[in-house]
Amino acid sequence: LTIARFYVSPDELKKSCLAIEGLAHHHLSRVLRIRLGQKVIVMDGEGSVGQATVREIGPSKSLLAVDTLIKMEKEEPGLHLFQALIQWKKMDRIVQYMVEMGVNSLIPFSCHRSRPLESLGADRVERWRNIAVESSRLAGRPYLPRVENPKDWEGALLSLQTFDEVLYADEEGGSRPAEVLGSRDNINIGMIVGPEGGFTDKERESLAAFGVSPVTLGDTILRAEIAGLVMTSALRCHYGLL
Amino acid sequence: LTIARFYVSPDELKKSCLAIEGLAHHHLSRVLRIRLGQKVIVMDGEGSVGQATVREIGPSKSLLAVDTLIKMEKEEPGLHLFQALIQWKKMDRIVQYMVEMGVNSLIPFSCHRSRPLESLGADRVERWRNIAVESSRLAGRPYLPRVENPKDWEGALLSLQTFDEVLYADEEGGSRPAEVLGSRDNINIGMIVGPEGGFTDKERESLAAFGVSPVTLGDTILRAEIAGLVMTSALRCHYGLL
Repeated sequence: LTIARFYVSPDELKKSCLAIEGLAHHHLSRVLRIRLGQKVIVMDGEGSVGQATVREIGPSKSLLAVDTLIKMEKEEPGLHLFQALIQWKKMDRIVQYMVEMGVNSLIPFSCHRSRPLESLGADRVERWRNIAVESSRLAGRPYLPRVENPKDWEGALLSLQTFDEVLYADEEGGSRPAEVLGSRDNINIGMIVGPEGGFTDKERESLAAFGVSPVTLGDTILRAEIAGLVMTSALRCHYGLL
Repeated sequence: LTIARFYVSPDELKKSCLAIEGLAHHHLSRVLRIRLGQKVIVMDGEGSVGQATVREIGPSKSLLAVDTLIKMEKEEPGLHLFQALIQWKKMDRIVQYMVEMGVNSLIPFSCHRSRPLESLGADRVERWRNIAVESSRLAGRPYLPRVENPKDWEGALLSLQTFDEVLYADEEGGSRPAEVLGSRDNINIGMIVGPEGGFTDKERESLAAFGVSPVTLGDTILRAEIAGLVMTSALRCHYGLL
């Protein structure tokens, strides 16, 4: 069976004997019922991954001795998903899927046909961050993906310039993602998925003005819920990662 | 906005003026509120796709005049997903996703760590078929995908021989799907996705004995819910369809 994985802080992972506390300790000692002497994986979310042996299990914390520690290479290309705000249930799944598929950051945004930014509520983004950490732990990702603060349409457009290439999934067709990217690598790629109902003509014009390439995801019509996952698959496939 | 699509029987689509009844009529007249003279798409689920004009909207049926009718090419390669029975909520989504992604048939099966075949209940498969038809209508697929009767493990293994190549998603790694398939095309491909927790050693031996190739879906660990979707994306990408 799969070996258990835990995130600890980068400072904690620098120690040869580290402590696991709080929810992670509860998970280790009560849920997984890990025993003294068992091996686990510890990760700092910034690329360092260690194998450790459980040395002590107390009522409020466990102590682990780090046996080996390696630094994983940064994930290339960088994949960043701009996702229009849709039904909250679907957003939860999108966070989970994008983490499992190796996306590096999720940037939720609002636009004309999306849910409005104001409907987010106080703890919605916090909830997505928790889902991201838990999915990332289960998927064993050495670099923790980020869930950025949601942006309005103008904010989303302005942040596009930090990427080397930006693609958006267009129901009306376009080139294949592989054709747009060609043989460039080591780049940061933004992927934009609009709301159910798509972008308005005005929004499409803005995307074009910002140099965003419309891409096709094949000849069937995908719902917004899986469009990001499918675009990510296409890119990972193009880069030989899938 | 997207044009409305309806399935009719192959016999109905042979007529120059056809009738839409029952739920489809309700959907056309009440939900979409389509008016006289509007254009819609009619499909027979066997590759024939027509554009039609609404000529009459009655209380129990609508009449459509078929303007143009074309026969779409058969989808190549044929993609067939063997999915181990997992949580019913997830199975519902798997049916939806696989239809949107162009899979041609879904073969649910039981194995050691899946839900047992006996837990299916009388109307579960019927429910999946309804989801498949509705997803297919929304996705605009000219060929209706099939949901086969669920099979036990032996039944699933025996049915593998009808495919030209069978791949299974293996957490322990393997070749990339593209490497296994190479340049062969026009083939029928079986894709096997195991249950959460994976296949037993004995089941893995059986798969090997039946000539099934283990493939990797990248270096993260995917849940059973999206493994089929990601494998389908990898194959569609390999064949230039994504």
